[in-house]
Amino acid sequence: MTQEDFRKLLKKVWAQKVSVEDALRQVRLEPFEEISCARVDHHRAVRCGFPEVIFCQGKRPEDITEIARTILKRANVLLATRASAEAFEAVRRAHPKAEYHELARCVTVKKKDPEPQPGRILVLCAGTADIPVAEEARVTASMFGCQVGILCDVGVAGIHRLLASMEEIHEADCIVVVAGMEGALPSVVGGLADCPVIAVPTSVGYGASFGGLAPLLTMLNTCAAGVATVNIDNGFGAGYMAAMIARKRARD
Amino acid sequence: MTQEDFRKLLKKVWAQKVSVEDALRQVRLEPFEEISCARVDHHRAVRCGFPEVIFCQGKRPEDITEIARTILKRANVLLATRASAEAFEAVRRAHPKAEYHELARCVTVKKKDPEPQPGRILVLCAGTADIPVAEEARVTASMFGCQVGILCDVGVAGIHRLLASMEEIHEADCIVVVAGMEGALPSVVGGLADCPVIAVPTSVGYGASFGGLAPLLTMLNTCAAGVATVNIDNGFGAGYMAAMIARKRARD
Amino acid sequence: MTQEDFRKLLKKVWAQKVSVEDALRQVRLEPFEEISCARVDHHRAVRCGFPEVIFCQGKRPEDITEIARTILKRANVLLATRASAEAFEAVRRAHPKAEYHELARCVTVKKKDPEPQPGRILVLCAGTADIPVAEEARVTASMFGCQVGILCDVGVAGIHRLLASMEEIHEADCIVVVAGMEGALPSVVGGLADCPVIAVPTSVGYGASFGGLAPLLTMLNTCAAGVATVNIDNGFGAGYMAAMIARKRARD
Amino acid sequence: MTQEDFRKLLKKVWAQKVSVEDALRQVRLEPFEEISCARVDHHRAVRCGFPEVIFCQGKRPEDITEIARTILKRANVLLATRASAEAFEAVRRAHPKAEYHELARCVTVKKKDPEPQPGRILVLCAGTADIPVAEEARVTASMFGCQVGILCDVGVAGIHRLLASMEEIHEADCIVVVAGMEGALPSVVGGLADCPVIAVPTSVGYGASFGGLAPLLTMLNTCAAGVATVNIDNGFGAGYMAAMIARKRARD
Amino acid sequence: MTQEDFRKLLKKVWAQKVSVEDALRQVRLEPFEEISCARVDHHRAVRCGFPEVIFCQGKRPEDITEIARTILKRANVLLATRASAEAFEAVRRAHPKAEYHELARCVTVKKKDPEPQPGRILVLCAGTADIPVAEEARVTASMFGCQVGILCDVGVAGIHRLLASMEEIHEADCIVVVAGMEGALPSVVGGLADCPVIAVPTSVGYGASFGGLAPLLTMLNTCAAGVATVNIDNGFGAGYMAAMIARKRARD
Amino acid sequence: MTQEDFRKLLKKVWAQKVSVEDALRQVRLEPFEEISCARVDHHRAVRCGFPEVIFCQGKRPEDITEIARTILKRANVLLATRASAEAFEAVRRAHPKAEYHELARCVTVKKKDPEPQPGRILVLCAGTADIPVAEEARVTASMFGCQVGILCDVGVAGIHRLLASMEEIHEADCIVVVAGMEGALPSVVGGLADCPVIAVPTSVGYGASFGGLAPLLTMLNTCAAGVATVNIDNGFGAGYMAAMIARKRARD
Amino acid sequence: MTQEDFRKLLKKVWAQKVSVEDALRQVRLEPFEEISCARVDHHRAVRCGFPEVIFCQGKRPEDITEIARTILKRANVLLATRASAEAFEAVRRAHPKAEYHELARCVTVKKKDPEPQPGRILVLCAGTADIPVAEEARVTASMFGCQVGILCDVGVAGIHRLLASMEEIHEADCIVVVAGMEGALPSVVGGLADCPVIAVPTSVGYGASFGGLAPLLTMLNTCAAGVATVNIDNGFGAGYMAAMIARKRARD
Amino acid sequence: MTQEDFRKLLKKVWAQKVSVEDALRQVRLEPFEEISCARVDHHRAVRCGFPEVIFCQGKRPEDITEIARTILKRANVLLATRASAEAFEAVRRAHPKAEYHELARCVTVKKKDPEPQPGRILVLCAGTADIPVAEEARVTASMFGCQVGILCDVGVAGIHRLLASMEEIHEADCIVVVAGMEGALPSVVGGLADCPVIAVPTSVGYGASFGGLAPLLTMLNTCAAGVATVNIDNGFGAGYMAAMIARKRARD
Repeated sequence: MTQEDFRKLLKKVWAQKVSVEDALRQVRLEPFEEISCARVDHHRAVRCGFPEVIFCQGKRPEDITEIARTILKRANVLLATRASAEAFEAVRRAHPKAEYHELARCVTVKKKDPEPQPGRILVLCAGTADIPVAEEARVTASMFGCQVGILCDVGVAGIHRLLASMEEIHEADCIVVVAGMEGALPSVVGGLADCPVIAVPTSVGYGASFGGLAPLLTMLNTCAAGVATVNIDNGFGAGYMAAMIARKRARD
Repeated sequence: MTQEDFRKLLKKVWAQKVSVEDALRQVRLEPFEEISCARVDHHRAVRCGFPEVIFCQGKRPEDITEIARTILKRANVLLATRASAEAFEAVRRAHPKAEYHELARCVTVKKKDPEPQPGRILVLCAGTADIPVAEEARVTASMFGCQVGILCDVGVAGIHRLLASMEEIHEADCIVVVAGMEGALPSVVGGLADCPVIAVPTSVGYGASFGGLAPLLTMLNTCAAGVATVNIDNGFGAGYMAAMIARKRARD
Repeated sequence: MTQEDFRKLLKKVWAQKVSVEDALRQVRLEPFEEISCARVDHHRAVRCGFPEVIFCQGKRPEDITEIARTILKRANVLLATRASAEAFEAVRRAHPKAEYHELARCVTVKKKDPEPQPGRILVLCAGTADIPVAEEARVTASMFGCQVGILCDVGVAGIHRLLASMEEIHEADCIVVVAGMEGALPSVVGGLADCPVIAVPTSVGYGASFGGLAPLLTMLNTCAAGVATVNIDNGFGAGYMAAMIARKRARD
Repeated sequence: MTQEDFRKLLKKVWAQKVSVEDALRQVRLEPFEEISCARVDHHRAVRCGFPEVIFCQGKRPEDITEIARTILKRANVLLATRASAEAFEAVRRAHPKAEYHELARCVTVKKKDPEPQPGRILVLCAGTADIPVAEEARVTASMFGCQVGILCDVGVAGIHRLLASMEEIHEADCIVVVAGMEGALPSVVGGLADCPVIAVPTSVGYGASFGGLAPLLTMLNTCAAGVATVNIDNGFGAGYMAAMIARKRARD
Repeated sequence: MTQEDFRKLLKKVWAQKVSVEDALRQVRLEPFEEISCARVDHHRAVRCGFPEVIFCQGKRPEDITEIARTILKRANVLLATRASAEAFEAVRRAHPKAEYHELARCVTVKKKDPEPQPGRILVLCAGTADIPVAEEARVTASMFGCQVGILCDVGVAGIHRLLASMEEIHEADCIVVVAGMEGALPSVVGGLADCPVIAVPTSVGYGASFGGLAPLLTMLNTCAAGVATVNIDNGFGAGYMAAMIARKRARD
Repeated sequence: MTQEDFRKLLKKVWAQKVSVEDALRQVRLEPFEEISCARVDHHRAVRCGFPEVIFCQGKRPEDITEIARTILKRANVLLATRASAEAFEAVRRAHPKAEYHELARCVTVKKKDPEPQPGRILVLCAGTADIPVAEEARVTASMFGCQVGILCDVGVAGIHRLLASMEEIHEADCIVVVAGMEGALPSVVGGLADCPVIAVPTSVGYGASFGGLAPLLTMLNTCAAGVATVNIDNGFGAGYMAAMIARKRARD
Repeated sequence: MTQEDFRKLLKKVWAQKVSVEDALRQVRLEPFEEISCARVDHHRAVRCGFPEVIFCQGKRPEDITEIARTILKRANVLLATRASAEAFEAVRRAHPKAEYHELARCVTVKKKDPEPQPGRILVLCAGTADIPVAEEARVTASMFGCQVGILCDVGVAGIHRLLASMEEIHEADCIVVVAGMEGALPSVVGGLADCPVIAVPTSVGYGASFGGLAPLLTMLNTCAAGVATVNIDNGFGAGYMAAMIARKRARD
Repeated sequence: MTQEDFRKLLKKVWAQKVSVEDALRQVRLEPFEEISCARVDHHRAVRCGFPEVIFCQGKRPEDITEIARTILKRANVLLATRASAEAFEAVRRAHPKAEYHELARCVTVKKKDPEPQPGRILVLCAGTADIPVAEEARVTASMFGCQVGILCDVGVAGIHRLLASMEEIHEADCIVVVAGMEGALPSVVGGLADCPVIAVPTSVGYGASFGGLAPLLTMLNTCAAGVATVNIDNGFGAGYMAAMIARKRARD
């Protein structure tokens, strides 16, 4: 409720067109719905431009079903991440149009397709083992209606494989770079691209990778400008951020 | 040099309008200039949209002067970060229009003003001690011609101070959030804003802050979507990223 | 044995009403009972106001039974934490009134109900996956006779969900805040409440959460005053601390 | 502004006793004051029971003076922590009654004395080098009107020195335990006391203390119940928490 | 394509012996092959002297088969590391000459034997549990045609066991030292040998080994000169590095 | 071979009582025996006073059998630690007198009993879950012929349980203190005892225990003098060290 | 006060030879003396065999003087560690026989010489920069009357320098090994010696030494048995422990 | 002393051409010289091919002079690293030909020039601030007589600057890559070069660089084969290792 909305409401109270209790109710109208295990944030789509997302890990199937059902009462699309096959079933119980993206471990529901956006997103993936995280980014950004391309196995140890894709890099409005092991790829891409780069470290690696700490530090310390980083293995966060950036473009 | 440029060049060689050695020279033309201490990357402005930036820390004044002079031979603007008063003098020796932003520890040179951009950037700063980092972000983004607003002392322990600025938050195209200590501000802002949020942890704090590790981890683990993080105290990186995002918008 | 008790005993020795060896025995009377695997601290209820608690993890069922039996010889209530279903059976063998709180992983025995206390405790829980830890806090505090309310899914990324519960917050005598991921909730609550806040980081999260290190550091570095922190996932410790604080109030 | 207050205001608008714009102003009335470098939170004393505190480290003297002056416009007491002699001068410029507690590195201003509270707080300090942190706790708690006792050099390596003070321990309503090096003292005290214990790790130590990490982990992992921990060297936080706990008692 | 090659090609275009489009194709000829899950780097054998290696961990069997088949189209040898029995089957489907080195967890394919190299490599292994890592180094170096000896159980706690092998140490052109626990062996060997030493920390150990962090730090801080370190458990990296060093010798 | 032994040997060569080649063989006689997977250090019993010990974790049963057999060819006693039931079977195949200490996860073989030693060792164990580590220490020290007592559940949160055993503490020649969680016990014991204390942190705990890092740091930073620490969960190392200390006494 | 002492006292009360209040006073007689900044533990010499030691770092000169004076009222010897020249002056004000050991940063006072002990201690020091820590160990152990030898620059990168001192190693009753950088020396010494080894990591080093963390982990993970570790740079702790071990021997 | 030398000596004893005591002396002849603060390892040049190096940090000038003098009694060259101007003076007192390499913080003495070696070493340096470490590597390798080239400011954020130097990269026998911040350069170089790469992380950076930890982890986790790493800022170690590798080549 903006200040302007509020001024209008007060004017109606002054004019006795709205009763005190009705006004109170309108102001108090809670923009969330309390269910047994959660407070579903219906207002989020208005506030942030995308409905609440279900992070399935650690949630019970019955809770997932209930949350999904509650969100879909008002929203046209639903995204559930870190979803096992069991979680997929739980969402499907809430809505028959649920789709499972196995590699990305995501479930999506599109009651109607999101409006297409002109922004182009490119997901670059350093190694084959990083693909699940890259796919999570791709699926997430797609839910916003963005066009998303994906290029795999372009790690820095064979730099010509990356250089061969300069055209795609230059056409992107935002690039998501997913890399494990030493995580050097975002630094190289950041130096080549003229659009924002979202770096995603992965836990792919062993030994002194320390569960993704190594590529995380690499990305945070990048000498390239125009690079920002999300949590280890957080393909969702990167895809979401990229969509917000690319969508902006579309919005104008 | 794009494939198309290259095809054209080859055609000229075929037509013997360009000699082999000239063609070779054109292809090899190195887009950087080697000076005593550095390889100045003139091509960067073309490639990434902004000339190379001088990170002054650990560089000798004579090197700073030489690098500044070399960049300014081709570029209209110059940004030097982590600049002491001594570094400012070094840049001024390269160009008389050098300006010193003391709080931000930045030097800027504008041979001509950058073209104004319609994108609006908002810098939020949790505490008074975080201001230098916030200022570095502001100065950096300003060099791209973006409009940059700044709001200080809006930490989460008095959440109403933040809520009082909802209007500015909703009008922004990109928000930079600077916070030390526990670094919780980006999570709250991320949940309120509908534009991308760049989080900057600072080394402000003590004890278990461990030099900014605490707010860094907080920001990476944020439960809000649409937030990406840069290095501790890296106001420059955040301002640069924000400008790339906001500029995009302008570009359309 | 207080100084006064001791003075009285010495007077009885002086008056030869108590023999030297009896006096010695009384003084040496060990306020614990040695069983095969433990030294059960019967004195604890006197000293600290609550009988010893069984931390079941890593203990064998037969040991749990024996310890439970020994404690219940003198105590009216028993709490066993980190209890599997198997541990529950072990306690039930010691006493038929054992109850299992599955979500909280706790077993309680109440030979008679604890005396009700006027102090009100509120447990706030940031996300659905943090509920087991919050429940452990709730069950623990309930054993002291405190009134304990619980509110779930009030994380900072949808701050209005928290603000909607301001009334409960202001009525509490002590608030326990349970949060994983970035753990920002206690900072916001600490800035809103006028009672002590006990913060509990959880290991809920992934990547740079590092098993709960991220929310732990967040909570320790909080910019809000009136917040103290317990170990990661330590719902028991938070509930116990909250009860000690709320009980104080009741005591007056 | 509570719901009830708001209902009353709406009724006055309905009755046209308050104009729309006046009502709007009352609702918007910002409970903070914006000065050049900060948003001073006047509402804090109402909300949390104690005015905002100035953390001097990293603030410029002129800012400290301005903030102090702004707080003291409405508040009767002022506390400034991590205060150098220079910071003391800055506060004194704001108010002549400023006092400097050198050991505690605190400045206090009492326009009138805080109302005495019946709650008793005991500060225990493991080693001589921990005294500044203990003093910060003592000065802070005193600002709430609490009675605060302090006992130094009662580290666990000479446990009889602690046992000799059992009486003071049993009389306390809340105990603050300050310890560096291995930080074992709160565990022992927690096992002896029947009131809440606030543990404060200090950076006193060397080698594998890692700036206070060692005693911090010790305190978080304590096997004693009824202990919660604040940040390393955070005497202020401990004193504030203790006062909130002891004050509660007084309030009843 | 070297500058000289390129000059020659341009001359042919000038002389119209090669068409523009053919020249373009030759220049663009990508030295990698794109398959469904990877970009196989055929150029690597030319560039670095050894074909691409398959790191099997986290790859699906069908991907391993496809990558192996693609590499073996052009290469004479193939190495697959971190290979389970299932991964071995996957490689065997690509080529019947696949061999499984169970202890080393490696699969090798030799369409024809690598050319023998005069360089001698010695692999020293501190403890029995470190043998798998040592074997990975041995198998890897053998694929380059180097002579590789291996000595096990020569840890520093029985230094005479090492001193008894001084002859082998002095005959080596490069020594790989594999050690877990405290990882002291490379320091001692580095002080005895007159050839480069490659140190490999292993995750063998417990407690404060922290997954191999302890021996890793030991090796990086070695007081012996002529020692460089690879990742924890990275027998492959050490064997590869050693072969590059020993092969150099052979090349002259 | 001492200098004196060597002088004697040289004298025999001078006197031609020993041939050059025989002398060479005696000097070279390697004090270890090479078997397929190890270099068994027979000389160790002479050098350090106790035969080599088998650390079973990560060793194959057939290797354990072979190593055990080789050691027992010359030694009267054998100790195998971190031994599963399978490892016990492996040792029993080497010698029928093998005994399994399940709680301690140790196998012992005594072809004849070790000579009794007058030194008294006391093992103190903070919690019930630490017993396996304490038992490992007890079994190890017993193999040296020392008298070893053990006291369990004497953690610092009920300090009177420890104080009740002052007599045993004062009679010990060396005390091993085993503690997980916060690991405060060695500091208290170190302040009470007048003999060396060996501290053993355990991985018992959760959350900020970080696998035993917390008690490890506690013990290293102890404010008590006369305390030294071994690796996390290293009951063997503590028992061995204690026996070396207590045995010394006996030796005089 | 032992049980036996207490029985005697009770008998005297029974016989009315000691009044109740006198008995009470004797029992309560606190074995420490409270001065302005400390509780000096006079009982320590009785309990642990050596008077309290002053850790000067972070203590004010006037406090050092007062503590020193209080200790020397009852003790014959005094040790002050981490002592600057200023701290030396402070001790000298307490007693004219104060001596300053500059390299060891220790002050000692011997009112009369400690009784000589037959135990031999050997301090081994890996590098020249580790000498201050080694000297601190030497001075400390000397205060107990032990014979202490010291050997410097015997690091593992030139192992023959260590092997040349085998005789001293074999004659020692306890060896203190001081090493920075990778800290491998204790493992080698532990494998050669037949007496307990106390390992002291130092902060000598750079880079991945992380202030002594590297050698600390090395020593804790040592594969040699009979080694225990003290805190980084804790020469005092090592010397004290070694003296307790060597003294034991003497005691017999 | 080899086995063959020893056989010859024994034969002389047998033949009574060498006395027992002379033989003993020859065998014991210690290949180091004991001076006041060190055991100078004269044998090192024989054993490892280069005389001992003086690490000046933490050493007193008089000790540096004495060690330098002792080494130069037998060696033709001397290298002193981490040398301040004061340390340079100390070496010059030992020999007048001492030269100071200020940027590299090294002192060298060449009584005669080292024999030239055919091996070519290339030092690549990512940023201007990394130059001191790169210079230390260059000076060190030069002392072995190797040809050493150096290329600065070739960081990955402007990859074409590196690609412009492919020729130098392909001509090298060993490449040292020095990089701070994110440390990605060795991965890119490792994928381009066909010779061994020695990676040197530097402490250049800030925030999440954690003193060089970030580039260190990057380099250890490199996805490029043929790369090994030395300690943070250890230019000396890298130069030494490179010289050993390049020299090998020369030796053949």
